[in-house]
Amino acid sequence: MTTIKDSVHDHIEVAGVAADLLDTPAVQRLRHIKQLGTVQLVYPSANHTRFEHSLGVYHLAELALDNLGVEGLDAERVRAAALLHDVGHGPFSHNIESLTHRETGKYHDDVADLLAQGQVGDVLRKHGLSPDRVAGLVAGNGKYGQLVSSELDVDRMDYLVRDAHHTGVPYGTIDHGRLVRALRFVDDELVLAPGNVQSAESLLVARALMNPTVYTHHVARISKAMLRGASERLLEADHDLTAEELRRMDDHGLIVALRLHDETAEFARRYAERDLYKRAVWAELGGVPDHLLEVDHAEIRGLEADIAAACELEPREVILDVPSEPSMTESSSRVMVGDEIRELGRQSPLVKALRTAQYQQWRLGVYTVEEATERVGREAVDRLGLEVEGTLVSERRGRAATLDEFVGGE
Amino acid sequence: MTTIKDSVHDHIEVAGVAADLLDTPAVQRLRHIKQLGTVQLVYPSANHTRFEHSLGVYHLAELALDNLGVEGLDAERVRAAALLHDVGHGPFSHNIESLTHRETGKYHDDVADLLAQGQVGDVLRKHGLSPDRVAGLVAGNGKYGQLVSSELDVDRMDYLVRDAHHTGVPYGTIDHGRLVRALRFVDDELVLAPGNVQSAESLLVARALMNPTVYTHHVARISKAMLRGASERLLEADHDLTAEELRRMDDHGLIVALRLHDETAEFARRYAERDLYKRAVWAELGGVPDHLLEVDHAEIRGLEADIAAACELEPREVILDVPSEPSMTESSSRVMVGDEIRELGRQSPLVKALRTAQYQQWRLGVYTVEEATERVGREAVDRLGLEVEGTLVSERRGRAATLDEFVGGE
Amino acid sequence: MTTIKDSVHDHIEVAGVAADLLDTPAVQRLRHIKQLGTVQLVYPSANHTRFEHSLGVYHLAELALDNLGVEGLDAERVRAAALLHDVGHGPFSHNIESLTHRETGKYHDDVADLLAQGQVGDVLRKHGLSPDRVAGLVAGNGKYGQLVSSELDVDRMDYLVRDAHHTGVPYGTIDHGRLVRALRFVDDELVLAPGNVQSAESLLVARALMNPTVYTHHVARISKAMLRGASERLLEADHDLTAEELRRMDDHGLIVALRLHDETAEFARRYAERDLYKRAVWAELGGVPDHLLEVDHAEIRGLEADIAAACELEPREVILDVPSEPSMTESSSRVMVGDEIRELGRQSPLVKALRTAQYQQWRLGVYTVEEATERVGREAVDRLGLEVEGTLVSERRGRAATLDEFVGGE
Amino acid sequence: MTTIKDSVHDHIEVAGVAADLLDTPAVQRLRHIKQLGTVQLVYPSANHTRFEHSLGVYHLAELALDNLGVEGLDAERVRAAALLHDVGHGPFSHNIESLTHRETGKYHDDVADLLAQGQVGDVLRKHGLSPDRVAGLVAGNGKYGQLVSSELDVDRMDYLVRDAHHTGVPYGTIDHGRLVRALRFVDDELVLAPGNVQSAESLLVARALMNPTVYTHHVARISKAMLRGASERLLEADHDLTAEELRRMDDHGLIVALRLHDETAEFARRYAERDLYKRAVWAELGGVPDHLLEVDHAEIRGLEADIAAACELEPREVILDVPSEPSMTESSSRVMVGDEIRELGRQSPLVKALRTAQYQQWRLGVYTVEEATERVGREAVDRLGLEVEGTLVSERRGRAATLDEFVGGE
Repeated sequence: MTTIKDSVHDHIEVAGVAADLLDTPAVQRLRHIKQLGTVQLVYPSANHTRFEHSLGVYHLAELALDNLGVEGLDAERVRAAALLHDVGHGPFSHNIESLTHRETGKYHDDVADLLAQGQVGDVLRKHGLSPDRVAGLVAGNGKYGQLVSSELDVDRMDYLVRDAHHTGVPYGTIDHGRLVRALRFVDDELVLAPGNVQSAESLLVARALMNPTVYTHHVARISKAMLRGASERLLEADHDLTAEELRRMDDHGLIVALRLHDETAEFARRYAERDLYKRAVWAELGGVPDHLLEVDHAEIRGLEADIAAACELEPREVILDVPSEPSMTESSSRVMVGDEIRELGRQSPLVKALRTAQYQQWRLGVYTVEEATERVGREAVDRLGLEVEGTLVSERRGRAATLDEFVGGE
Repeated sequence: MTTIKDSVHDHIEVAGVAADLLDTPAVQRLRHIKQLGTVQLVYPSANHTRFEHSLGVYHLAELALDNLGVEGLDAERVRAAALLHDVGHGPFSHNIESLTHRETGKYHDDVADLLAQGQVGDVLRKHGLSPDRVAGLVAGNGKYGQLVSSELDVDRMDYLVRDAHHTGVPYGTIDHGRLVRALRFVDDELVLAPGNVQSAESLLVARALMNPTVYTHHVARISKAMLRGASERLLEADHDLTAEELRRMDDHGLIVALRLHDETAEFARRYAERDLYKRAVWAELGGVPDHLLEVDHAEIRGLEADIAAACELEPREVILDVPSEPSMTESSSRVMVGDEIRELGRQSPLVKALRTAQYQQWRLGVYTVEEATERVGREAVDRLGLEVEGTLVSERRGRAATLDEFVGGE
Repeated sequence: MTTIKDSVHDHIEVAGVAADLLDTPAVQRLRHIKQLGTVQLVYPSANHTRFEHSLGVYHLAELALDNLGVEGLDAERVRAAALLHDVGHGPFSHNIESLTHRETGKYHDDVADLLAQGQVGDVLRKHGLSPDRVAGLVAGNGKYGQLVSSELDVDRMDYLVRDAHHTGVPYGTIDHGRLVRALRFVDDELVLAPGNVQSAESLLVARALMNPTVYTHHVARISKAMLRGASERLLEADHDLTAEELRRMDDHGLIVALRLHDETAEFARRYAERDLYKRAVWAELGGVPDHLLEVDHAEIRGLEADIAAACELEPREVILDVPSEPSMTESSSRVMVGDEIRELGRQSPLVKALRTAQYQQWRLGVYTVEEATERVGREAVDRLGLEVEGTLVSERRGRAATLDEFVGGE
Repeated sequence: MTTIKDSVHDHIEVAGVAADLLDTPAVQRLRHIKQLGTVQLVYPSANHTRFEHSLGVYHLAELALDNLGVEGLDAERVRAAALLHDVGHGPFSHNIESLTHRETGKYHDDVADLLAQGQVGDVLRKHGLSPDRVAGLVAGNGKYGQLVSSELDVDRMDYLVRDAHHTGVPYGTIDHGRLVRALRFVDDELVLAPGNVQSAESLLVARALMNPTVYTHHVARISKAMLRGASERLLEADHDLTAEELRRMDDHGLIVALRLHDETAEFARRYAERDLYKRAVWAELGGVPDHLLEVDHAEIRGLEADIAAACELEPREVILDVPSEPSMTESSSRVMVGDEIRELGRQSPLVKALRTAQYQQWRLGVYTVEEATERVGREAVDRLGLEVEGTLVSERRGRAATLDEFVGGE
């Protein structure tokens, strides 16, 4: 057994298959992948990694297994899945996941191949575990998969608390100790014991407050979009680099690769100096034509190029950032009320409100170099058929200094 | 200047009129009044007092004044009001406030007389401050009264964080540092600067989660109702004790007085041993006839006596606990969105949902001695015309152990 | 099983005999006894109680038992002893312990009679435990008694962390998670596993820094001495009150009793208003004649009376406070270094230094009403044969405002 | 003014020259340099950077200036120096500083050239500050230099608290709020106000406990020595890379450069997989011949080569790690005792003890590949003339699993 000191859960005791998995390259690699990617440019303390998060998820899974009385191979598989659930992440975690998914067909939780091969595969088989079944748990399959990936999984219990601890933003402080103790299996379905409607709501609320404050802060979105675009250009420029290799890099590897190629050096400089693009447009959902919500990647690149050309800019100097529509998986969490199992979305009026709030907070963004925000803003509004109430963001800047523009990026 | 170490804000520097007020009996008395009254019976660490809370409110007021650039007598008055805002509390804070209000006509923030007299009056006048105007600020009057008592006052910023710290419940961790920095006066109206919709929502959300988990936890409500009833009997039994004197007692005084009188000794024993009444009925708002929501105190005592008689119990052994309808003052908080001032209740879909949640969480309670919960439950349902879905709480007990029954009182 | 939320250890799960003991009057009484007595007058947030501390000690004991693999009746006895270890405390914890010990012959850990009687005795016997053997553990007897009361007991691991949390003073933050995991039995002796010299030192260091900053802060000492004196006068004045009854009071009971008697009402007023005596003398160990270190209580009262008479004061207005010589039980902690067991005092140069520091910090105090500090100071120096370097404390006041005089007591 | 959210100090307000310096490449580069280098391999959460630390130092400097009443250009210079004090750090902070110093003649606080050039120089001059004078403050020169670099500087107040927060080790929790408030200038000398002997001691004690637990943990030392050796080979192998360029790299740059060169690829693999060398010898000061304490770098490389040759290993597979003798600058901190200024080393018996403890904890290490620890251990003992009590570390391993080997590296 190995005891590890964690800044969130204090001592984490790693045993069984997890202790052996800890020393594999696939798990150690996670030390070099920031949990929140470019959010560090907004919250300077947010340098925590997927490695410590994975340990935290393992720790909470262990507590949950213990409370639920799960033992034997079932438990070992969950332990392995908890520690391994993020090995499929590429550099900068979710930041370039849409790119790697487009090129490889795989999201970060598609890990069947990664678990079958190399030292991880060896360790799993040595402990009598099937890599395929562990990968299934990571994907959320089956009764026990719910512990690792579902609306009530221990993954979100760890990340909300950990992201709060490291950013300093207090909104993620759910009561994970209570949630883990309240988990129950009823007819193989993971639910919360009676008396936990607020506990369940707090999970949603925490994410709803962390979203705009941290995860989709506009500076985080701009830097992420810039990184994603640069990574795409890197793939195009470097014929020796495959998308699969890109996915297996760590943060160091990607940053230095971006520095070394002419096509991405300018991004690398901007990233190093936090000299980021600015918002030219920041449009609400109601002001965006429906068809824009369904454009594919090629069309977006076309639109970017058109706007850039009209404004006499390089294509890469205009970024069109169209987030997907809001989702709220926690709303299907099940809680017991008396003897009955109810879906949280039906029990709690908060769920609908938070969904509405997410729609309100949704923004289409167009970003560009600081000196061109006005003309790019006007061009984008025209060409994309946006309705932007009043003035463009690019014209408002400077008039109302706001506290949410931490670190003064803009 | 005096520097005081606080468990929440670290060092608090008390200066000017506040330093002189600190040593007055009226302020020192607050050391002996628990901030959360009987909540200590649910959360054993919740022993913090109105004294440390008052210091915290003073500290945040100082930060707000500094950020807003308020100086001179205006600032001194706010400092005094912040430190003095709770001197009107009776023993166990809000727990017996409805009783003392009924008997004296005064709520805890009605402090004009308290500030005019004794050492407090002397200190205020010595510093050139009018006790009346300071009392006005405590009541929330005028431009600067909003800092002390309004939807955006520093009072709630302190208590949410402090109550979370001392109960161990993580839901109150709003970002008070940001909120205080975001306060602005626009046309003498206190508002939050642009970019702070989430900050404002977090205040509401924190209270919405703290409410059922802490402030209206059923064990807190039962013990509070028992204490209030016993205090009423004490007033009736002890002809030397006036309601005004009761209001000026501290916790020690009330507890010992209750021990010493025959009529209240049984309560005192139950309180000392945490041997509390149990719920006989726990009815949702929809199941309560309208007229019951408007019964006055005398009618409630009549109903209690009737139910008790029918069940062959002492009148004091049945408690009918009808909370007032939910309120949500924070919903009228004003936040700037761009250049415009909007009421939070209009801007945020959360507000309506939280109001709905409060109505959902509202419960009428009937409490009695453990051995009589079933028959009292049945009698109360009949006599009060309640509709209770399925079984009575008194029949459900023991079937579903729930985490929200901390400390296992029931 | 009962789950309790604690501000320090988060969730505490109370099971077995401990769950039954929780509801006994003897344990519930601890809710009304402040852990640090009058320290609240220095650190306003220090209102935590012996109840939450007892739960914390139980929690750490449970962790230690689990790590050490202790099971069955041995473990149950330790659980009971951990939860009950402080039921022998009188009001204000250690503050009046020397008085109750003088009158009853019992210290707070002499609990054989308390455990044998009443509900506690019933519960213990119901669980097949001998009250006598449990009381033996509380006294530190036998192999398992070391867990409850020894240089490495879980008692001090809880109180150092808890007192730090509630005072806000950061010096008590030892790594209790590591210490509990490092406990080992070697030949029935409790030791720390190899690699824990620093962990053991941190226990000493924490206490060495907490001592002068919190536990023996001069305002805490003055208020404690005043309380002790008043309690003694109460015993003398109230012929219906026995010393054994005094010992079984709680804080509320003692405070109100002091208010109600003429002989102690002045103290009660001073306590309520934090209007404390001041230091007339504050003498280092080197300046105190040897014989003064061994005077008994009667002699001290005589000296106080003499000084008071000479200064035309009431006898109770002069307090001579002679602490016993410093002790440092942690120095005999045993740690493993390689395969060998070594006493910490031999292994660590810190131990000797901390002992020296304690001697340096030792002070004899003479306290009196503010207006008489100068003449009492001079009289005391003469009569007691003290050597005080330079000027008396009573003459120095006001020249050097110091941060350690929090809350401006002086 | 820019407001930044920090995980340690909450909100940091950056104003004046500091706000302009924030956006310079030299300061932004610190986002990519880990505060504790390879300590991350022992404490997985220790990923904080020199950037957030620099902000923290700036914040505490601002508080100190405010308390001391320093204003105008004097204050601006200190603000600039606080924010810039670490721009001279190379990749991995102190880890390869001995190498870069040997090659460039500069330590990290030798920043005169860095402050004079580029955007930093421009900003300083724009604000009317001389780069040279600011560099002087960083080096600790003059009255105000003491705030930035001395025994009582705000640098150590930040790093002790920050390192504790991010490692999870609780020993660094000094009371920085009190220390900053206690700073005074007496005859241009920075001292602590009366009543702060314990505050001063706590600084020493914190470092004394953090040292063996964090900073010189043997796994941190081994990985640091491996990194330093690999960086030296990189400099030798890559003729295009100058030592000055190496010093200006960030962590990403150095890690990738080590991956890309044949001579260092094996180290890069070991680092990525946390497959570290193990201790062959771990010798106390008393067992090391005097002359070994004074060997220069060339001699050490010779000895490593000799031992390696004798054991049929590559020269790089043997590392001889001879730390310099312990120092304790805090011992010359000055504290006021009454009206007198005393050196802490004279006032506090702790200082001498902590110095002794440091000598006790000092270890010479010889590290090598796991399979060769025994033969390298024996060869090193012979060749270096070491006296090692009992058995070699390489032979003891596995017998006594110890808690200080967190993360199970060995």
